[in-house]
Amino acid sequence: MAGGVGSRFWPMSTTENPKQFIDVLGVGRSMLQLTLDRFKEVVPMENVWVVTSEKYGKMVAEQLPEIPVNHILLEPCRRNTAPCVAYVAWRIKKENPKANIVVAPSDHLVLNGKEFERVINNTLSFTAETDAIVTLGMKPTRPETGYGYIEADLSTPSARNKELFRVDSFREKPDLSTAQRYIKKPNYFWNAGIFVGSVSTFVNAFRIYQPEISQRFENLLPIYGTDQEQEMINKVYPECENISIDYAIMEKAEEIFVQPADFGWSDLGTWGSLHENSKKDIYNNVLIGENIHMFESTNCVVHTTQEKKVVVQGLDGYIIAENDDKLLICKFTEEQRIRQFSEA
Amino acid sequence: MAGGVGSRFWPMSTTENPKQFIDVLGVGRSMLQLTLDRFKEVVPMENVWVVTSEKYGKMVAEQLPEIPVNHILLEPCRRNTAPCVAYVAWRIKKENPKANIVVAPSDHLVLNGKEFERVINNTLSFTAETDAIVTLGMKPTRPETGYGYIEADLSTPSARNKELFRVDSFREKPDLSTAQRYIKKPNYFWNAGIFVGSVSTFVNAFRIYQPEISQRFENLLPIYGTDQEQEMINKVYPECENISIDYAIMEKAEEIFVQPADFGWSDLGTWGSLHENSKKDIYNNVLIGENIHMFESTNCVVHTTQEKKVVVQGLDGYIIAENDDKLLICKFTEEQRIRQFSEA
Repeated sequence: MAGGVGSRFWPMSTTENPKQFIDVLGVGRSMLQLTLDRFKEVVPMENVWVVTSEKYGKMVAEQLPEIPVNHILLEPCRRNTAPCVAYVAWRIKKENPKANIVVAPSDHLVLNGKEFERVINNTLSFTAETDAIVTLGMKPTRPETGYGYIEADLSTPSARNKELFRVDSFREKPDLSTAQRYIKKPNYFWNAGIFVGSVSTFVNAFRIYQPEISQRFENLLPIYGTDQEQEMINKVYPECENISIDYAIMEKAEEIFVQPADFGWSDLGTWGSLHENSKKDIYNNVLIGENIHMFESTNCVVHTTQEKKVVVQGLDGYIIAENDDKLLICKFTEEQRIRQFSEA
Repeated sequence: MAGGVGSRFWPMSTTENPKQFIDVLGVGRSMLQLTLDRFKEVVPMENVWVVTSEKYGKMVAEQLPEIPVNHILLEPCRRNTAPCVAYVAWRIKKENPKANIVVAPSDHLVLNGKEFERVINNTLSFTAETDAIVTLGMKPTRPETGYGYIEADLSTPSARNKELFRVDSFREKPDLSTAQRYIKKPNYFWNAGIFVGSVSTFVNAFRIYQPEISQRFENLLPIYGTDQEQEMINKVYPECENISIDYAIMEKAEEIFVQPADFGWSDLGTWGSLHENSKKDIYNNVLIGENIHMFESTNCVVHTTQEKKVVVQGLDGYIIAENDDKLLICKFTEEQRIRQFSEA
């Protein structure tokens, strides 16, 4: 899934060039490319599909030359994750009704790729033999209020796979005291938005819990892969309800499992999490750019295009981000106002 | 005089595009253009001469289309103000040995143009009839340690012109306690680096006090205005001593007068003086740029190219300056380190 607009990272990320297409970490690969890299040992590249906005199609093709161009599906408008997953599920079903799929965001961070691979392979082996949808539950390390939580029934692991447990409930982003309560319990996990299941399981779940969405993509079965696909999608897609896969399917379906996992995950949804997850200098600054010079400055993130020479003196706890035609300087503590700043 | 490199205003000002060529004040005219504007009622534009570095010749011609292109004299290297004044004095002498000239820096600020005109016209009327060189003495408003001072003999004004007084001495940039002492006395003035005199007076002063420099420019009299001028200047100029007009002539010559003046002058030599002399918002910020948005920020200067959107949150007392490929954020109190920062 690569259709997000990344407004919280303005001006590093903009509608024209959102977070998934940016080398956020300064490692030479965009978040999207790093996401693909994680799957290279898991799935042949010709089996990868990307759903994105029509205006990002060209960028996906440029950044991911390894995947077939006709596997880049274009949403004519944003309708959250449920229509996105439905579209790609039916589309893959047309190619291979027995496919087993992993649905994943394209702008998250995973530090331990080997463990990620092991966990994904484990869940795929489970969903290949069952009608379950598995979601990955991240071991919480702090009372994060920016994530949804998964409540698991840890009493009895699946008989088929001892790493998998039934989900009791999905919990929306909590307030701080609720989050503090959650993380004291062993059966609460962060919802990373990564879902694994066979394509027929996804399709069947949509048929049962989202008949209107299902009907639309089912009707298009004859034209997937033909010249009329985009035209018809452009017609049908806007009619879909704007709803997340969590609400549309996960909270309703029966056979929902969680695999608790710990592979150094972050959604990198805030400058704070970017700071936390990046390499720091001895003054706790994260410097992303080739020519950044800090004097008497601590606890900052500086993100710039690679050609720019940046000199920062005397700042503590600031975000400094700039691109060709925008510059933001603001305190970390005010980062929730960045959307407001971007509209100033 | 438009040959300076403006290193104290990095990165707004760079060797490629120094301060005199920049719209420092955000008024739509560069400092050089504002300087020419001040002389428009004083002197016909075809009598204006500019001495600059050879690499800025094109920029001067572009910014000052009103003046004759062959009045832009090009220094092949920097040799401070004495060789610069000598060159233009001999060059003008060739055109008009009776000329009366004003020598002025091109990157200073004058707020009261009418009073400037009046003062310049007064000094010109004096030097047209005498062999004096007149320097303008600015009424000091604070114990500035960044300027040189002029000590005047206020006891007897010139018999010809009651605004003019003999100079007792030129004083170098003082330390703070000395500056505090100076500004308590009525006869100490800031040296604005503006000199007025007839061209024959300047030339004669050079002949007496700087015979080596004089000899070089005197020898070129036959080739001024010919195709060989630049070639010969390129040969002769580097051999000149690197010395200021103050040291070379003013401190040595006999007939040196000062006209005390008060027309809102600043050399705009520091970000501090730029801040002091510019229009401020109600939070005491100076914002130069078309698209700058301040939140909870006070006592800052922000200078940017006009297309850039800049958002600043939570800064007090900072300089934020950027151009195409450079960005500086530093405290006002550290501005004397800007040269160091520029070399980082």
